[in-house]
Amino acid sequence: MDRSELHRLLRSFLREDIGHGDLSSESLFTRGEEGSARLVARDPLVAAGVESVAGEVFRLQNPEIQTSGAVADGSMVAAGDSLLTVSGSVVDLLKAERVALNLLQRLCGIATLTAQFVEKTKLYPVRITDTRKTTPGLRMLEKYAVRAGGGYNHRFNLSDGVLIKDNHIAACGSLTKAVEILRENIPHTIRIEVETDTLDQVRECLNCGADIIMLDNMDLESMKQAVALIDGRALIEASGGVNLETVAAIAATGVDIISIGALTHSAPSCDIGMDWQT
Amino acid sequence: MDRSELHRLLRSFLREDIGHGDLSSESLFTRGEEGSARLVARDPLVAAGVESVAGEVFRLQNPEIQTSGAVADGSMVAAGDSLLTVSGSVVDLLKAERVALNLLQRLCGIATLTAQFVEKTKLYPVRITDTRKTTPGLRMLEKYAVRAGGGYNHRFNLSDGVLIKDNHIAACGSLTKAVEILRENIPHTIRIEVETDTLDQVRECLNCGADIIMLDNMDLESMKQAVALIDGRALIEASGGVNLETVAAIAATGVDIISIGALTHSAPSCDIGMDWQT
Amino acid sequence: MDRSELHRLLRSFLREDIGHGDLSSESLFTRGEEGSARLVARDPLVAAGVESVAGEVFRLQNPEIQTSGAVADGSMVAAGDSLLTVSGSVVDLLKAERVALNLLQRLCGIATLTAQFVEKTKLYPVRITDTRKTTPGLRMLEKYAVRAGGGYNHRFNLSDGVLIKDNHIAACGSLTKAVEILRENIPHTIRIEVETDTLDQVRECLNCGADIIMLDNMDLESMKQAVALIDGRALIEASGGVNLETVAAIAATGVDIISIGALTHSAPSCDIGMDWQT
Amino acid sequence: MDRSELHRLLRSFLREDIGHGDLSSESLFTRGEEGSARLVARDPLVAAGVESVAGEVFRLQNPEIQTSGAVADGSMVAAGDSLLTVSGSVVDLLKAERVALNLLQRLCGIATLTAQFVEKTKLYPVRITDTRKTTPGLRMLEKYAVRAGGGYNHRFNLSDGVLIKDNHIAACGSLTKAVEILRENIPHTIRIEVETDTLDQVRECLNCGADIIMLDNMDLESMKQAVALIDGRALIEASGGVNLETVAAIAATGVDIISIGALTHSAPSCDIGMDWQT
Amino acid sequence: MDRSELHRLLRSFLREDIGHGDLSSESLFTRGEEGSARLVARDPLVAAGVESVAGEVFRLQNPEIQTSGAVADGSMVAAGDSLLTVSGSVVDLLKAERVALNLLQRLCGIATLTAQFVEKTKLYPVRITDTRKTTPGLRMLEKYAVRAGGGYNHRFNLSDGVLIKDNHIAACGSLTKAVEILRENIPHTIRIEVETDTLDQVRECLNCGADIIMLDNMDLESMKQAVALIDGRALIEASGGVNLETVAAIAATGVDIISIGALTHSAPSCDIGMDWQT
Amino acid sequence: MDRSELHRLLRSFLREDIGHGDLSSESLFTRGEEGSARLVARDPLVAAGVESVAGEVFRLQNPEIQTSGAVADGSMVAAGDSLLTVSGSVVDLLKAERVALNLLQRLCGIATLTAQFVEKTKLYPVRITDTRKTTPGLRMLEKYAVRAGGGYNHRFNLSDGVLIKDNHIAACGSLTKAVEILRENIPHTIRIEVETDTLDQVRECLNCGADIIMLDNMDLESMKQAVALIDGRALIEASGGVNLETVAAIAATGVDIISIGALTHSAPSCDIGMDWQT
Repeated sequence: MDRSELHRLLRSFLREDIGHGDLSSESLFTRGEEGSARLVARDPLVAAGVESVAGEVFRLQNPEIQTSGAVADGSMVAAGDSLLTVSGSVVDLLKAERVALNLLQRLCGIATLTAQFVEKTKLYPVRITDTRKTTPGLRMLEKYAVRAGGGYNHRFNLSDGVLIKDNHIAACGSLTKAVEILRENIPHTIRIEVETDTLDQVRECLNCGADIIMLDNMDLESMKQAVALIDGRALIEASGGVNLETVAAIAATGVDIISIGALTHSAPSCDIGMDWQT
Repeated sequence: MDRSELHRLLRSFLREDIGHGDLSSESLFTRGEEGSARLVARDPLVAAGVESVAGEVFRLQNPEIQTSGAVADGSMVAAGDSLLTVSGSVVDLLKAERVALNLLQRLCGIATLTAQFVEKTKLYPVRITDTRKTTPGLRMLEKYAVRAGGGYNHRFNLSDGVLIKDNHIAACGSLTKAVEILRENIPHTIRIEVETDTLDQVRECLNCGADIIMLDNMDLESMKQAVALIDGRALIEASGGVNLETVAAIAATGVDIISIGALTHSAPSCDIGMDWQT
Repeated sequence: MDRSELHRLLRSFLREDIGHGDLSSESLFTRGEEGSARLVARDPLVAAGVESVAGEVFRLQNPEIQTSGAVADGSMVAAGDSLLTVSGSVVDLLKAERVALNLLQRLCGIATLTAQFVEKTKLYPVRITDTRKTTPGLRMLEKYAVRAGGGYNHRFNLSDGVLIKDNHIAACGSLTKAVEILRENIPHTIRIEVETDTLDQVRECLNCGADIIMLDNMDLESMKQAVALIDGRALIEASGGVNLETVAAIAATGVDIISIGALTHSAPSCDIGMDWQT
Repeated sequence: MDRSELHRLLRSFLREDIGHGDLSSESLFTRGEEGSARLVARDPLVAAGVESVAGEVFRLQNPEIQTSGAVADGSMVAAGDSLLTVSGSVVDLLKAERVALNLLQRLCGIATLTAQFVEKTKLYPVRITDTRKTTPGLRMLEKYAVRAGGGYNHRFNLSDGVLIKDNHIAACGSLTKAVEILRENIPHTIRIEVETDTLDQVRECLNCGADIIMLDNMDLESMKQAVALIDGRALIEASGGVNLETVAAIAATGVDIISIGALTHSAPSCDIGMDWQT
Repeated sequence: MDRSELHRLLRSFLREDIGHGDLSSESLFTRGEEGSARLVARDPLVAAGVESVAGEVFRLQNPEIQTSGAVADGSMVAAGDSLLTVSGSVVDLLKAERVALNLLQRLCGIATLTAQFVEKTKLYPVRITDTRKTTPGLRMLEKYAVRAGGGYNHRFNLSDGVLIKDNHIAACGSLTKAVEILRENIPHTIRIEVETDTLDQVRECLNCGADIIMLDNMDLESMKQAVALIDGRALIEASGGVNLETVAAIAATGVDIISIGALTHSAPSCDIGMDWQT
Repeated sequence: MDRSELHRLLRSFLREDIGHGDLSSESLFTRGEEGSARLVARDPLVAAGVESVAGEVFRLQNPEIQTSGAVADGSMVAAGDSLLTVSGSVVDLLKAERVALNLLQRLCGIATLTAQFVEKTKLYPVRITDTRKTTPGLRMLEKYAVRAGGGYNHRFNLSDGVLIKDNHIAACGSLTKAVEILRENIPHTIRIEVETDTLDQVRECLNCGADIIMLDNMDLESMKQAVALIDGRALIEASGGVNLETVAAIAATGVDIISIGALTHSAPSCDIGMDWQT
């Protein structure tokens, strides 16, 4: 994650939640009052964004706020464990609290769900990846959380990866034609991926040299045939409606990558509280 | 929702997903190619943000894109039904698709969950409200979706509502003192709300004239006693760990408002696809 | 006031006045030259924004500029008294000077005028408030100055308060209908205010449970009758053409709030200079 | 005024006043409702920013709002006269109303005061100009209003004009040295102005070839002597505490320019209302 | 190029050149005056950004400006030929002229130089690409111009491509280790490129499976050996001090890609004027 | 240069080059790793923007990066000499490297070319100036580089200088009329410049009191006649197609200013590398 871009995002989030000021805390606390609090996991979770995101939120609100005891992103945390201790101006701790928690609960949720998918497939040499189905405005943060949970990232956006879909193929006349046009237009640093529904399309991909073949919503049997057919000549990505029940069987077919929109659009929020220390 | 603020948000979301351009579609389609597609519900859902958000995303990407057949926000939609038809430049439809769907799936998810809570409590004169536990950057949109689902909004941020919590009380010496200070500082247009854990605190609220009394994580019996005690002299808000199983019993205690963080932090994303028309 | 929002504003003001650089001072001073100056009141005034705004302007221009001797916002200052001492890079002191003074003269002007209205009404339990008639772009700062002068704030903007006016009533068919619709739509944390011209409208407000009744441009006799009629069942706000001559008589009618647009749109600018120390 | 910069300003002002939406009007009006209103002068005034600023505010809020009957900027308007008629969506007219009026009242106030100074000096070939004592954020608009009132603009900011002051002179060792350094550093398109307190300084200015000599807070007799001394060899600007009582006598001394901070920091706001048409 | 990002850039360029308004043209032309002008090549050139950039500049300044007769990007244009005709408000044509020309001259310069490199290598199946040595702020535009000139783009920035350099290798202990770490961290959609100075490094790249091997500043003989060694197992990119004299010989070695910083950092600006039509 | 504006620019440049993070360096280096590198001139050059721009780029990326050994802007540097040493986090040095070099190579290029023009004319009391033909987005930086090279700046943009051209004259009816209108409209702090093609126009300029007369693309003989004719009554600026071969002869005609678009649109980029220290 780039710090400058991160700061730009976090500042806009603080402005959204604080507005022109905190009516309650600015009235009830004197400016100099200091305190300390811990961000505590109420559920077991995999940490993501503890120091790197939540810590930054507090420091952006007030550069004099100190953080300590941060759990490393990616580590497993038991219910009741402290993730981070923050100390400094009480008013600023309260002003930053909600944004820090809202982000942390979401990012830990994503890392935790990702880790569950990774655990289910640990016997196979397969990569669990995200998709572009992220929360608008939070893509950089959510993709970071996927990595913290042991997953991998797919392309970041439309300008740094290509994926040829049905209507692209229809527009060009054929899958082969679409691959050729793209190869003639995109940077050589980027691989060409094609979404396929049938084994015939998989064969066409192999013939025209697609770098990555996505098996979109195929049944397990078709996946196995596709893997055999491709036989190492392209990366193979399984996609479409993958869940914790089906993921191991998909991994067992021999695909290289399983991309899962649910990692970011359906991860349950983790319960994390902020406990003041007396 | 204010249109100018909405446009500012949607433009930043489009930039996040498109980057410096769509490598695939800009290469594979000619500039003038036109097409038409429908946004279709794969699950039953309550609509939110159809024309007002998703439609705007497409129009911001290209002002010449036309929308039609929009389902009204707040209406119930069956699986398979079309939410919106969009027509125009294929490249721009594809560039806007993911942002439009990511937003719409989230907003319909929130509206749908809200409607379930509303349905569970329909026998009681109670208001289901959101909290500040929204996705950073999406508060205006998510609070709109809560209203679309039949719910109500709580304060928007720290500057347009007050909520006196434990540490505010500790800082002031007493709940009464905190209420007095706030009443002396905030606009007369805003009500004072106090978070209470005990009936003693509820009594103190009544004595010092708090406008809204939040019963925080109280059991049903305590809630009933609190309602009897307050007897119409303040608005009563129940809060804390409410779910679809418990909400009806809470409503039955006679509280006026039930605020539920899960509406925005844990609503499952709805499955909505974009089907091209041939 | 929120610091992040404040910084955003002040940075744009500095850019407006400095442009791409200070042709005079950047040419005439060496980069390291240091100096010290005092912001001095030329007229008696009530201070507002001394350290919190003017001090921040200097620090944003150069974080190494030191401030000292700041008069507390809200205190009365005699002509010739120093408000703030600033020390550091001469070039940066000169670059920030005009923005700091332009803001300070305006904010002290508002605080001073507010204090005069407060003084005129000190015998009555009445609140002097501002309106939305503020300088575009400066609302947060000007409302802060009203508080520094002993006044109170009305709603901040259209999204954190409601005021039902003539054309709202006309659109709904009746005042009662408008109140009912709003009560069904707005957060429970916000009070409903209605603008009234006649005692009949005041009666209708009481019947439908408006929280705040604005008496708009009523004569003193009508105000007294309205106060008697309302009898504590709603907050009463007098508004319309209030000035230093009329405010005491209005306060004497027993209204709770007097809102005065002139506090922000017509406060005379205070004369404040920057005197260099040798 | 540049339109792109104007739009940027006006959008930020609309956001400040509207926040995330208009709670009252968005609830009480249906989206399609249309209406018409006139902006009416309650006092006699000189118009500034009618179509160019207030009209733009309405159009930015909703491009479909129509304006008509705009009084030309710079023209004199009697109390009761209409300045502008606006027609379109009632909700958007109400959302834009306050920003439009707040700006228009201030700009007409500046134009009106400027016109009074111009009127007082109409017998003399003198130019009434503004200063940098403008409202932060509004400089482009306020300087436009000065021109609408028949005045002229001084430098816009620190980067497009130079003014050598006391501490510049002290830093360089002498006035002559300061002029020489600046002449060697600034674009040839910009004149060099020096602030003088004494006739000796005026003489030094003439010797070193200053282009503009500011007579700062000089008495009338000294001004006359300075004018005689300079004798057309430099432009002469009188400055410092000028008011409507003193301006004619100052003009009579023969100075070329009279710069007046009060034009922008102390112009009384004009009373302008928005009357709905039935 | 994405239109929304393009507009953001062009608006900031217009603001830079126009400031708060055009002192000359706003004074000398009446608002309604219309005219027409042609952008004319004074030198032979390859067109880039004609309608897509220069045309947009004019339309952003004033949406009513019409363009016609645009030469297609990528086409060769003779000295004296018209690139684009623009018609509309004279004031706005003059305000947009300099920004449009400054951009167009630079973009055509890049396309023209690129086309020269392409021409020199037309006998070989090699791709001429740009680098990250672009003008800060103009990368999207300059990379577009490279494509218009018949070249290809390398990675856009640090987040959409990887290039392992000396100090990366030193930090990891070995080239192989660096490749392994990166393969374990980056999206599968992105190829891994390694910068090599020696044939030993080339061999190590082949062993660890680098996707792209950059031959950095190698002599022609070493390049030939490297090409033979690699033998199709990786893409080969030649880089370092390539010029119009050396490029053909480099292409003849059999490399796949030649990346040339000079395309964007040293392309001579084309001479293009704006001729008014009478 | 103003620091706040500079930071705004540099932050946007860093975002352009870094995107959402540096895939290579963030993976290959541990966060704490530190290093040191020197920016080294590969060619002889005149320095511009070393500490003031390149140093700021590194500090903005990470405020803990230290710089030392900066060569003063404007000094001549031999090939192989170090311009600046930077020390700190290796990841952040690598992330800032390209932006710092891209800027520095361009700015030193401009300063170096400017110094060559200045050297060619050193026997004459003439000022070498830039024009508005700068790279969009970089004007403040490029004009700074011209000054570093010993040149001077012309007007910054359309709002801080005036230049009457052919079509202005045509629009007003006569050159004299155009000068009169402008004198009546612009601040007295700004000189009026007129572009002339003939001696007749020069005469008309003298009659109507233009402050600066531009001789546009005149031959040497005409320039000499124009200088004789003007005889010190106005500043004389030569412009149009000036190059290193012709500049001395132009200077010899006695003009005061020679403005050269090539300084900014055609300066060759200097070769500067970043050498890591072991």
